[in-house]
Amino acid sequence: MKTIKTQVAIIGAGPSGLLLGQLLAKQGISNIIVERVTGDYVLGRIRAGILEQGFVDLVREAGVSERMDAEGHVHEGFVISNNGNATRIDLKELTGGDVVVCYGQVEITRDLMAARAAAGLETYYEAKEVQPHDVKSDQPYLTFERNGEQYRLECDFIAGCDGFHGVSRQTIPAEIRTEHERVYPFGWLGLLADTPPCHDELIYAKSDRGFALASQRSATRSRYYLQVPLTDNAEDWSDDDFWTELKRRLPPEAAANVQTGPSLEKSIAPLRSFVCEPMQYGNLFLVGDAAHIVPPTGAKGLNLAASDVATLYKIMTRVYESGDRSCIEQYSEIALRRVWNGERFSWWMTNMLHDFGAELGGNGLEGQTFNRFMESELNYYLGSENGRKVIAEQYVGLPYEDLKD
Amino acid sequence: MKTIKTQVAIIGAGPSGLLLGQLLAKQGISNIIVERVTGDYVLGRIRAGILEQGFVDLVREAGVSERMDAEGHVHEGFVISNNGNATRIDLKELTGGDVVVCYGQVEITRDLMAARAAAGLETYYEAKEVQPHDVKSDQPYLTFERNGEQYRLECDFIAGCDGFHGVSRQTIPAEIRTEHERVYPFGWLGLLADTPPCHDELIYAKSDRGFALASQRSATRSRYYLQVPLTDNAEDWSDDDFWTELKRRLPPEAAANVQTGPSLEKSIAPLRSFVCEPMQYGNLFLVGDAAHIVPPTGAKGLNLAASDVATLYKIMTRVYESGDRSCIEQYSEIALRRVWNGERFSWWMTNMLHDFGAELGGNGLEGQTFNRFMESELNYYLGSENGRKVIAEQYVGLPYEDLKD
Repeated sequence: MKTIKTQVAIIGAGPSGLLLGQLLAKQGISNIIVERVTGDYVLGRIRAGILEQGFVDLVREAGVSERMDAEGHVHEGFVISNNGNATRIDLKELTGGDVVVCYGQVEITRDLMAARAAAGLETYYEAKEVQPHDVKSDQPYLTFERNGEQYRLECDFIAGCDGFHGVSRQTIPAEIRTEHERVYPFGWLGLLADTPPCHDELIYAKSDRGFALASQRSATRSRYYLQVPLTDNAEDWSDDDFWTELKRRLPPEAAANVQTGPSLEKSIAPLRSFVCEPMQYGNLFLVGDAAHIVPPTGAKGLNLAASDVATLYKIMTRVYESGDRSCIEQYSEIALRRVWNGERFSWWMTNMLHDFGAELGGNGLEGQTFNRFMESELNYYLGSENGRKVIAEQYVGLPYEDLKD
Repeated sequence: MKTIKTQVAIIGAGPSGLLLGQLLAKQGISNIIVERVTGDYVLGRIRAGILEQGFVDLVREAGVSERMDAEGHVHEGFVISNNGNATRIDLKELTGGDVVVCYGQVEITRDLMAARAAAGLETYYEAKEVQPHDVKSDQPYLTFERNGEQYRLECDFIAGCDGFHGVSRQTIPAEIRTEHERVYPFGWLGLLADTPPCHDELIYAKSDRGFALASQRSATRSRYYLQVPLTDNAEDWSDDDFWTELKRRLPPEAAANVQTGPSLEKSIAPLRSFVCEPMQYGNLFLVGDAAHIVPPTGAKGLNLAASDVATLYKIMTRVYESGDRSCIEQYSEIALRRVWNGERFSWWMTNMLHDFGAELGGNGLEGQTFNRFMESELNYYLGSENGRKVIAEQYVGLPYEDLKD
């Protein structure tokens, strides 16, 4: 058994864990990351990349923004299409100046990994059997195995950044946890292609044939999605079928501008809303997907992880500056307030834009009635300037909450 | 069999039928109302009285606004309370000048009845077995019985203003009708008292004990409501019990200001969302409750009836001015668009403000998860100026839609 020590043990080297580690290190707070898989495996995960200003500011504060600032693409708006009728949500005008930045999650992860390596901060990749212990005590620790060797990582705090399937959430006893879950009755079939995007900005398209999203990773890499039944298999969709169906769902101008090409990747992801309450247990804190999942409609997943990181970073900084640990009790409450806002926004956007068919709708409604409500909702919110402002201010991200004194 | 003739036969002498009749008469379009019960019975129905500007304008156009203008109380805002924390929705400021008028539905009905009598327009009260015939033909007619005599009322058009339980909707063949319905898992226990209201404006109060509404009919007559289980009986609630529970749910200042008194009326009403599509069949048009019911949260019931009246009035006016009947096909589409907006708003306000307990929530959510979403929804909409504007502009009423050329 090899014993190592740090102030904050971070489980998971995804963007949340890496960003937290970098921010803590800037404050002189030591941290070690343990990660189940390899760095290359982490970088192989394909994810979204619409960053709220809060996230961008945090990456800058961590000192890792150079490439994001150079290569990230500012999006001043996005489009919602309702059966071919496109309405632009002018984020900048509707919010009085706020925008989002399009920069792939994989690129952020890559930048954070490089910065962590350059700073000489420790990361234990391929750490097996990671297990938190004594998290309710002042001396929690992790155990794990790596290259056949047993490790004991002693620390003051544990940050569980290990995703939905990680061990951290399971460490909170079941009788203390409440898990909220909604699994939607459809999935998203995603296709990645090295073709220029069909439009400068994202297009969220509701159509009688189901939802589609025209997204992008860069000026030469497109990411498109189609709502499909959960019973579909990605391999049954040829590239041609995908492109044909996509064009049917997008507004005509965008459809005409779609540049097809061979798929680099094609897969179906289920859509899920999930929240675990509370998000802390003793000196263990859940961050990001470990505590909450949103459907991708509205691009909130990574951004909610970032606001968790921001809150935990503020708490850790105060604890190590003042020696007063009392503020750690604020974590779950502050984090959850913003998480529920993001969950609600993603749920709402998902409800408004997808075809739910005959599935039981909202609150005891038959599916057809729910669909009518959602048609009316979309028409009202797109047609009203106040409605568009409500969409815009939530899309760019509600402000981060400060700690109480 | 006595045969009588008119241009528009109106079934139902509630506010919709009376207002429509008055407006048509002003345009020289003859009309006869047949009503199942007596005028006094109609006036005995206790209903709300928050009037949108569109309704007020229509009553003025009908020339029946004298008492409403003198005695109606302009409300420039209302209050939403979230577990004791009150937020004012400043309608006038948030909408740039729009307000609502508090004037009881019974008073409007009384004014319209008096105006109809003064103008010598015919109303057949206590008409039994009212039945529309040949509504798909150019010569529809009603039959009914009155004082033992059989009547045949020949007309060009039939306006079904006969409420949820009336014969008009049933006249549309079942295979053509789609009926959307949501019955909520609670009711409103209402109490009417001759005491001054506890607050100048309405208070919609969400609380952990359930919803309450502090409403009013005049400066000396209060109307209060409590959310109660559908299994409760009004007679099991003493006046004292009601006042005690009301004060627990209202924000502290308002609760302290509640003036109790003996109940003039106390009853439990179920809450229902209901829409019938289409709202027309041949030369029969459904108006108001005959086609749609909303839960009272948000005060849209009477106002949606008024917008139906406005649309039908415009169509009838054009038909008789131009002789071109083609515009009658627009009725259902135009009316339903606004109806769905009002239905959605009422459903949303009901969802946000009531306690749904463990009932299955929105869209396949468990009750507790739905409650979390609604807590977040209410906090966001009350906390955001854009959110308050979205509430306000819908509360004062979305604009009436014009006919297409």
